[in-house]
Amino acid sequence: MKLLSTGVNGLDELLHGGFPEKHMVVVFGGMGTGKSTLALQFIVNGLMKGEKTVYMSLEERENEIVESARGFGWDIQSFIDNNMLILIRLDPNDIKSTLSRIKNEMPKLIKSFGASRLVIDSITLFEMMFSDEAERRLNLFEIFAILKETGVTALITSEAAREDSYSTRYGLVEYVADGVIMLRYVRQDELRDVKLAVEVVKMRRHNHSRSIKPYDITNEGIVVHSESEVF
Amino acid sequence: MKLLSTGVNGLDELLHGGFPEKHMVVVFGGMGTGKSTLALQFIVNGLMKGEKTVYMSLEERENEIVESARGFGWDIQSFIDNNMLILIRLDPNDIKSTLSRIKNEMPKLIKSFGASRLVIDSITLFEMMFSDEAERRLNLFEIFAILKETGVTALITSEAAREDSYSTRYGLVEYVADGVIMLRYVRQDELRDVKLAVEVVKMRRHNHSRSIKPYDITNEGIVVHSESEVF
Amino acid sequence: MKLLSTGVNGLDELLHGGFPEKHMVVVFGGMGTGKSTLALQFIVNGLMKGEKTVYMSLEERENEIVESARGFGWDIQSFIDNNMLILIRLDPNDIKSTLSRIKNEMPKLIKSFGASRLVIDSITLFEMMFSDEAERRLNLFEIFAILKETGVTALITSEAAREDSYSTRYGLVEYVADGVIMLRYVRQDELRDVKLAVEVVKMRRHNHSRSIKPYDITNEGIVVHSESEVF
Amino acid sequence: MKLLSTGVNGLDELLHGGFPEKHMVVVFGGMGTGKSTLALQFIVNGLMKGEKTVYMSLEERENEIVESARGFGWDIQSFIDNNMLILIRLDPNDIKSTLSRIKNEMPKLIKSFGASRLVIDSITLFEMMFSDEAERRLNLFEIFAILKETGVTALITSEAAREDSYSTRYGLVEYVADGVIMLRYVRQDELRDVKLAVEVVKMRRHNHSRSIKPYDITNEGIVVHSESEVF
Amino acid sequence: MKLLSTGVNGLDELLHGGFPEKHMVVVFGGMGTGKSTLALQFIVNGLMKGEKTVYMSLEERENEIVESARGFGWDIQSFIDNNMLILIRLDPNDIKSTLSRIKNEMPKLIKSFGASRLVIDSITLFEMMFSDEAERRLNLFEIFAILKETGVTALITSEAAREDSYSTRYGLVEYVADGVIMLRYVRQDELRDVKLAVEVVKMRRHNHSRSIKPYDITNEGIVVHSESEVF
Amino acid sequence: MKLLSTGVNGLDELLHGGFPEKHMVVVFGGMGTGKSTLALQFIVNGLMKGEKTVYMSLEERENEIVESARGFGWDIQSFIDNNMLILIRLDPNDIKSTLSRIKNEMPKLIKSFGASRLVIDSITLFEMMFSDEAERRLNLFEIFAILKETGVTALITSEAAREDSYSTRYGLVEYVADGVIMLRYVRQDELRDVKLAVEVVKMRRHNHSRSIKPYDITNEGIVVHSESEVF
Repeated sequence: MKLLSTGVNGLDELLHGGFPEKHMVVVFGGMGTGKSTLALQFIVNGLMKGEKTVYMSLEERENEIVESARGFGWDIQSFIDNNMLILIRLDPNDIKSTLSRIKNEMPKLIKSFGASRLVIDSITLFEMMFSDEAERRLNLFEIFAILKETGVTALITSEAAREDSYSTRYGLVEYVADGVIMLRYVRQDELRDVKLAVEVVKMRRHNHSRSIKPYDITNEGIVVHSESEVF
Repeated sequence: MKLLSTGVNGLDELLHGGFPEKHMVVVFGGMGTGKSTLALQFIVNGLMKGEKTVYMSLEERENEIVESARGFGWDIQSFIDNNMLILIRLDPNDIKSTLSRIKNEMPKLIKSFGASRLVIDSITLFEMMFSDEAERRLNLFEIFAILKETGVTALITSEAAREDSYSTRYGLVEYVADGVIMLRYVRQDELRDVKLAVEVVKMRRHNHSRSIKPYDITNEGIVVHSESEVF
Repeated sequence: MKLLSTGVNGLDELLHGGFPEKHMVVVFGGMGTGKSTLALQFIVNGLMKGEKTVYMSLEERENEIVESARGFGWDIQSFIDNNMLILIRLDPNDIKSTLSRIKNEMPKLIKSFGASRLVIDSITLFEMMFSDEAERRLNLFEIFAILKETGVTALITSEAAREDSYSTRYGLVEYVADGVIMLRYVRQDELRDVKLAVEVVKMRRHNHSRSIKPYDITNEGIVVHSESEVF
Repeated sequence: MKLLSTGVNGLDELLHGGFPEKHMVVVFGGMGTGKSTLALQFIVNGLMKGEKTVYMSLEERENEIVESARGFGWDIQSFIDNNMLILIRLDPNDIKSTLSRIKNEMPKLIKSFGASRLVIDSITLFEMMFSDEAERRLNLFEIFAILKETGVTALITSEAAREDSYSTRYGLVEYVADGVIMLRYVRQDELRDVKLAVEVVKMRRHNHSRSIKPYDITNEGIVVHSESEVF
Repeated sequence: MKLLSTGVNGLDELLHGGFPEKHMVVVFGGMGTGKSTLALQFIVNGLMKGEKTVYMSLEERENEIVESARGFGWDIQSFIDNNMLILIRLDPNDIKSTLSRIKNEMPKLIKSFGASRLVIDSITLFEMMFSDEAERRLNLFEIFAILKETGVTALITSEAAREDSYSTRYGLVEYVADGVIMLRYVRQDELRDVKLAVEVVKMRRHNHSRSIKPYDITNEGIVVHSESEVF
Repeated sequence: MKLLSTGVNGLDELLHGGFPEKHMVVVFGGMGTGKSTLALQFIVNGLMKGEKTVYMSLEERENEIVESARGFGWDIQSFIDNNMLILIRLDPNDIKSTLSRIKNEMPKLIKSFGASRLVIDSITLFEMMFSDEAERRLNLFEIFAILKETGVTALITSEAAREDSYSTRYGLVEYVADGVIMLRYVRQDELRDVKLAVEVVKMRRHNHSRSIKPYDITNEGIVVHSESEVF
């Protein structure tokens, strides 16, 4: 089974190499846990190896994504210019257009463009578009099936539930994802500085470590301290 | 009373031999607790003894199930080819077809095929198809009654409730199941690596151990450490 | 006041003798706490003394109940054959028929049969049949009134609430019951084996102990260790 | 301000003498905390002093109330026979009749009978009759206003909320009550025997103790140990 | 900025002098925390200084308020007789009349009467009158705006939320109030006597202490022990 | 990337300089945590440097804002008079007018006025105006998009959720904000005085400290003690 590096050494170690090819992996966590940063590292790693990538954003604008990457020293604009990377901004307020683009345009684009990596940032904003629970589930499951069909390897970010940092906001994507990575704040108590910790919760058809490892968001992106304990 | 081995020695010990024949046993736990792995071990154990099996999946595709098994060194494709195992993929988005197939086709198939073991992975995706609580309960109870009628011994996976790891997502299947096995994360605190623990919660008409035992998901599947304590 | 033994010595001690005659006593607890086992002991105790019993089940089929009893060494089939025990299976999916049978048939049957003991296993499946909260309460209160009218002494099992092991699932039956017995898991912490504990919470018109006592589900049924502490 | 003894010495101490005349006092607690027993003690205390009493029950039947009292050695039947006590059973399933009787009959009866004490057991069953929250509140407030108008001193029992033993089930009666007494289980931990504790939470226009005192339900009724600590 | 004494020395200390003139201050807490007592102290303090006061009650009747004050040794009847104090009872069951009186009559009355202090006891009963959340908020915000317009300094009592003693029942009034004072039970554990503690949570345009101070409800009203710690 | 000082030294340190230009930063916390004070400091800092500012308030009136600032020694009236600052009061009860003003007037005003800083106090009162969850989200996302378009740097206050001080009341603004600052009460236990603590939770495209630092609300505004630990 071919494995794709996440671009983060310590995380690749936890994953025993990386994401299995064609897997749809959900990365979830609260605000400020670095989900989008990890997504950027994943695509930059692929781009450096010559893999084409599609980045669908429901949160940030195209120029903001480019700027975010630049902050970490990654010049993704050049990859866009070289036709290696396509950034697509979807409007989380326009349900009709966004749905149609994901269901119809995206699969064709991924195939014709020859993308081997896909990012969706974030799936929670997609889920939020539906006020009816059944509709949300049906559409979520459907786009997972459609995108999986393309054979792309995907990293999909998701917000954690407010009251329960161990599941996503709607508790749905983890059902259909092939893998789940959890980013979490660890507070020894209410008074001390928070630490960030990462854990591979689930990875179908591939063995992985169950260790909880501390990480930092540095100027070079996420760095997982795979050699140390959280405290 | 005839007992069917689960394929996991340490779990058979907790069960005082295995699942009582014709029991419908629910295995529930959070994501990444190895529910599907246990289901695979259960069918492989039967197949090795020459027992025919039906595997109904609402989660993974047929080829993914085969691949998952291969990851543990189990070649279930050969059993499919030898007409010992039938994999059936049900679409969790197509309520009408899935309901009709489970209610009408499945009982006939189980009988005509002569299956002695059945897996449903997962019943939560079945339950999710109903937005009306009463409908969910009625349909769930009905398919349990229909499948029980066939005399098959079943292992049915279920997701744990998000906020309460001691019950299933909808808190219904444990009522109608003959047996319940709980897979659980045990966190000494937020900072240490998680451990996995298994517990037989209920087994009608059969005595069982009430011990909580640690287990690992290894390259050979689930291994319960029946001789040791969780910590 | 005449007292009816529960068939469990240690529990009779907590009850200062047993259930007061004509009381409707609810036994509630989570799955696997032995509610049905206690119900069986209650009827076997009566049958051995020549008391006639009606056992209404919304959970298990008649043959399953017989088999469950056999597992504990109790041959209730012979009592059925000798017209001492009537097992009645009510369909939790058929609201109309079940309601009509409980309201119309049961009172007549209990009287004409001359039953002195009644079991309902479980009232939660009855409560579940109503999606409207008011209807659930009205019907529950009504059947309690109707059955109480018959003068039978009843043991009624109920599931504990998911989030709160100190009340029943709907928090209703404890209002109308004459007595309430709570079966509970006691976990010193998440890591140690669970213990089972029993507590008499309420018994109208009869004094009782407020001790919490450990119990086990053995091959001879429930054994309350009235001489020891839980830990 | 005239004070009416509750019939429980230790509770009178906490109340600095008893209930202020014309107060409507809510006694709330979980099942088995002795709310009805306290209500009986309150009326027996009055009856012994020659005060007339009306006892409205939505829970127990007239004969059951008489029997309950007899269990504590109180012969309230003789007071009924001597026209000192009126027991009224209201049907919690018949909203129309119950509402009409409380609003129309009761005030007249209380006045014509010359009752100085009133018991309502329990107000929660009254509140339960309304599925609409606004209707529940309006009717509750209305009957409090109507009954207060009569000048009677009332003890009204209420169930505690399931999840929060510090408020009543609907969190309404404590707003309109002149006084609130809380009966509570105190569990040092899950493993030890429970203790019962009483606390006067609120008493308008009258000072009271804020101590928490242990009590027992004995063969002579509730005994508050006002001299000791809970543990 | 002119400050109005609350009538409670220790609280004035926490407030660095008292309530800023024209502020609308919410005092919230659970039942029995002395909210109405504090409201009485606030008006008595003003009356003694010759300030006119309007007291709007949705809870107690006029004579009950007079009687409550008398219990603390305050003869507010004489202030009523001397046209210094107006008690107004609003019916929490008559939404139409109560709304109209607060919106139309009250502002005029406050101005024509020349009231410098206002009490509303309690705003929660006002909020309760609306079953629709939006209507509740709109009406609440509107009467705050209307009453603020009059330039009166107001003390408004509110019930604490049942499950969360750190916010009011509906979590709304604290948004529009200029100041918030929290009265709270402090339980070291379930077994010890409760203590009462006061805390100034918010006071716009005025600095205040953030200390938590114990207080008692004595025969002379609330006494804050500003020199001591809670435990 | 240009950074705008928040006006609070210690917070600028946590932010590694200040807010990135054109960022929309949410400051959230419970009542009394000083959100509005921080907003004032942010605009005063800009005004002192000659930057024009628009302050939109849904909570306080214009004169109250001026007075609040004066309490800290900041004379913002002179800036209003000198056409440097525009205070706009929006009516949280008039949904139509408020929406129209924010969507249509504000962007034009910000541009024509040449404002480089914007305050919205508080966004929660905006969110509250919608009873329909989908409408709330759509409108919130839309005004964020519209205001972001103007290129202004914004500080937006938000109330914390009642039950969970780690998210905002509706759990929405943190999704669309570029940055999130959390103000929080830290209670060592229920009995000790509370401390205030600040934490930068998220800041897109800009690295920041993850330390939790204590702060006080003084007569000169918020002072963050960046050199010390919370306890």
